[in-house]
Amino acid sequence: MLNYWLNLKFCYAIVLFICFCGIASLHLQAQSSTSKTEQTLRAIFDEALTNNVAYQNLDYLANQIGGRLSGSPQAAAAVEFARQVMDTMDLDKVFLQEVMVPHWVRGTPERCSLLGQHKNLAVCALGGSVATPNAGIRAEVVEVKSFEDLEKLGKKNIEGKIVFFNTPMDPKFINTFHAYGGCAQYRVKGASQAAKYGAVAVLVRSLTLRIDDYPHTGVMVYEDENEVKIPAAALSTLASETLSEALQENPKERVFLKMSCKTLPDVLSHNVIGEIKGSEKPDEIILIGGHLDSWDIGDGAHDDGAGCVQAIEVLRIFKALGIKPKRTIRAVLFMNEENGARGAAEYARVAEAEKLLHFAAIESDRGGFTPRGFTIDSEDPKTIAMFDKWRPLLAPFDLHKIEKGYSGVDIKPLEHVHIDSKNTILLGYEPDSQRYFDYHHAATDVFEAVNPRELALGAAAMAALVYLLDGEE
Amino acid sequence: MLNYWLNLKFCYAIVLFICFCGIASLHLQAQSSTSKTEQTLRAIFDEALTNNVAYQNLDYLANQIGGRLSGSPQAAAAVEFARQVMDTMDLDKVFLQEVMVPHWVRGTPERCSLLGQHKNLAVCALGGSVATPNAGIRAEVVEVKSFEDLEKLGKKNIEGKIVFFNTPMDPKFINTFHAYGGCAQYRVKGASQAAKYGAVAVLVRSLTLRIDDYPHTGVMVYEDENEVKIPAAALSTLASETLSEALQENPKERVFLKMSCKTLPDVLSHNVIGEIKGSEKPDEIILIGGHLDSWDIGDGAHDDGAGCVQAIEVLRIFKALGIKPKRTIRAVLFMNEENGARGAAEYARVAEAEKLLHFAAIESDRGGFTPRGFTIDSEDPKTIAMFDKWRPLLAPFDLHKIEKGYSGVDIKPLEHVHIDSKNTILLGYEPDSQRYFDYHHAATDVFEAVNPRELALGAAAMAALVYLLDGEE
Repeated sequence: MLNYWLNLKFCYAIVLFICFCGIASLHLQAQSSTSKTEQTLRAIFDEALTNNVAYQNLDYLANQIGGRLSGSPQAAAAVEFARQVMDTMDLDKVFLQEVMVPHWVRGTPERCSLLGQHKNLAVCALGGSVATPNAGIRAEVVEVKSFEDLEKLGKKNIEGKIVFFNTPMDPKFINTFHAYGGCAQYRVKGASQAAKYGAVAVLVRSLTLRIDDYPHTGVMVYEDENEVKIPAAALSTLASETLSEALQENPKERVFLKMSCKTLPDVLSHNVIGEIKGSEKPDEIILIGGHLDSWDIGDGAHDDGAGCVQAIEVLRIFKALGIKPKRTIRAVLFMNEENGARGAAEYARVAEAEKLLHFAAIESDRGGFTPRGFTIDSEDPKTIAMFDKWRPLLAPFDLHKIEKGYSGVDIKPLEHVHIDSKNTILLGYEPDSQRYFDYHHAATDVFEAVNPRELALGAAAMAALVYLLDGEE
Repeated sequence: MLNYWLNLKFCYAIVLFICFCGIASLHLQAQSSTSKTEQTLRAIFDEALTNNVAYQNLDYLANQIGGRLSGSPQAAAAVEFARQVMDTMDLDKVFLQEVMVPHWVRGTPERCSLLGQHKNLAVCALGGSVATPNAGIRAEVVEVKSFEDLEKLGKKNIEGKIVFFNTPMDPKFINTFHAYGGCAQYRVKGASQAAKYGAVAVLVRSLTLRIDDYPHTGVMVYEDENEVKIPAAALSTLASETLSEALQENPKERVFLKMSCKTLPDVLSHNVIGEIKGSEKPDEIILIGGHLDSWDIGDGAHDDGAGCVQAIEVLRIFKALGIKPKRTIRAVLFMNEENGARGAAEYARVAEAEKLLHFAAIESDRGGFTPRGFTIDSEDPKTIAMFDKWRPLLAPFDLHKIEKGYSGVDIKPLEHVHIDSKNTILLGYEPDSQRYFDYHHAATDVFEAVNPRELALGAAAMAALVYLLDGEE
């Protein structure tokens, strides 16, 4: 009986093996009749999966440099690293583009606790926030779910208190970015809105779908330069639940918050650019990009180390395969996406001033996860039709999602740059979104959270798209 | 300048927010005109993503029970746990199906070392292997890449030595299961093939695309009951590279291998079955399944704890939403997929004997990763057409890959069961494959390697498909 079933299992193995052989031989037969385009796309993926230099570069960027907030020494190190890497790649041009960036520093580790319960709450300052007074803030807390709640409560219930925005991301969205979109306003605008009612600080529930003890930072802005600026911090989702429960037990529960963050004078920094000159249309650029800066509390592996090393990898793949593009292929590693987007603005300004025609631009800034497809930031039917034509070429690489959608913060300003009244085709690389907010702007965004194959497939997906775009008239 | 760009960033945030509102309102408008089917599919995903009981069940199965190899006390605990969970779900029937299973035990931790270099090599016995002699084996090693290499080397170069199958998985396949298919034969059949040439043991490179120090176990079989049975073990990929380098430096390098694994008498175990009775066609079954047993060196979280808790979750979702299926929906947690597939065989035997008509069967045994789609194990044009019709319904949930392919080891025997000369529609749930072999059969296959949303989306995908199948005549 044992033998019988072992043999059965064994037969399965053989049948499976024969199937695989079948697939392999079909594949070989098919290859002889495949187009040059199909062969090149296959070669691009083979190169990315076999010699995954993107992963090695990410190892250095995340583990040897780490978090690299704009204006920090680490951001300068990242600029130098990216320049050095591209300098060794036999590219036609590698250069830096100067840009002044904000310089916000976190200071000593933040502290937050429930005074009545002597319990610490995991907290981090939001980027751009002012500090608390040196002695910290001790105040009662009022929990809200929305800006409408502030209005309902009014000044009499808010003045002198800490406002706690405890709005969880909605888990029902399939694409987690939609859930993020629904909540990000409390992080970005919460301080200004609460200050209008006399709040002394804001605490915001971290923007993640996980229940854990990692606070997630991110940019906040004061809407009016002259407003009373109050400190803003994120609590981990676990700390948010703890605080909410404590307030239900005792609405008079007081919280202690201390932060010493501050904004220093602007610092000179750089976008890093490398390119392969086009053989036929050198003045038309196809841009691939990510942003080199990251938040400081993680290593910025997914956000956006992944996008940077993928952009470099696209150039490496083209060089390794000896593909000579008609157009100029340019990798741009933007500085300061996270808290100001100054690199993006400067890049667009220079493009306009120097009349640099960008045929297309693709940004990878949604993490180094397994590829799903691309978002097309365009209403132009010709562009949509072009992508429809490519669907069968991209499907074998599990690139099925090709839909209208947002491109990326760093390339979006190119929308307003019209050289010879031509538009740039703006595109976003779209990996799977399920895990992104486990890591986004948190201490968990480390090298180990990135899978080497997923990272490589993303680079290959972008290289494939660049190749297809370059083949168009 | 700061303000300008902060405002720009702020404008982006507002534009994004308006976009999201747009999407949300479109969504609401669309909903009013959506079909009942579309509404139910949406409700299924909402339920899975909001009340993710699958993840809680997996926590228990992986962390409180852990690895559960057939015949082990943990396998018995898993049977009892699954029964208890389904017993609390107000199902129409929960029962166990008896099956005798093999009982192979690993014994004391295996040891392997390079004798010349006094270096340990990370190793684990393959399931089904015999032990080494008590004192271990000390022998020279001959490295091969294929069975053809054995033939070329011949008995004179192999006799008395350890054969080392060092064939890496091919990273170029997009679907990693194809890479697995190309190498699994050395693990399964390597010992028997090498023994023909007088080898004293085999070492096999672990079946993973990672270079790390985790050995990956898995089933091996002796082809002939009467052959000289030699021990078989897997080396981590890192140990494989170390050994290969050592052999290049010194082809006479000797290796020590000691294992005390053995096969004990068969043990009584069980498939665990729970069902919701069909309202119109109770005698037609739609089966969803996974396998309850796992290898012993990890916690069997992806392989196949995920499939089990997803199968249970399908029933839970149907109950939670009050969906009354026409057909009987049955979750089957099979025992002994890993080293014998006895549960699968017994289930099919009973189905035949009791004339249980299975309208369709879906297996989830490719990990708890983000969904891609389903494989259809059928050549029937009617079945293919049915799935083509469903593509637009499944695409909003990122289920784009609906292709012909293998279903699953546990449901495959139903192919040969024909009640009233009807065929069963055999289907495989297909998650993304990129990370699967990082964890497969290794100590890394733990609860933390499973993302809660990815797990829930898989359960929802299967529930959605069950709902669609049930709607067919």
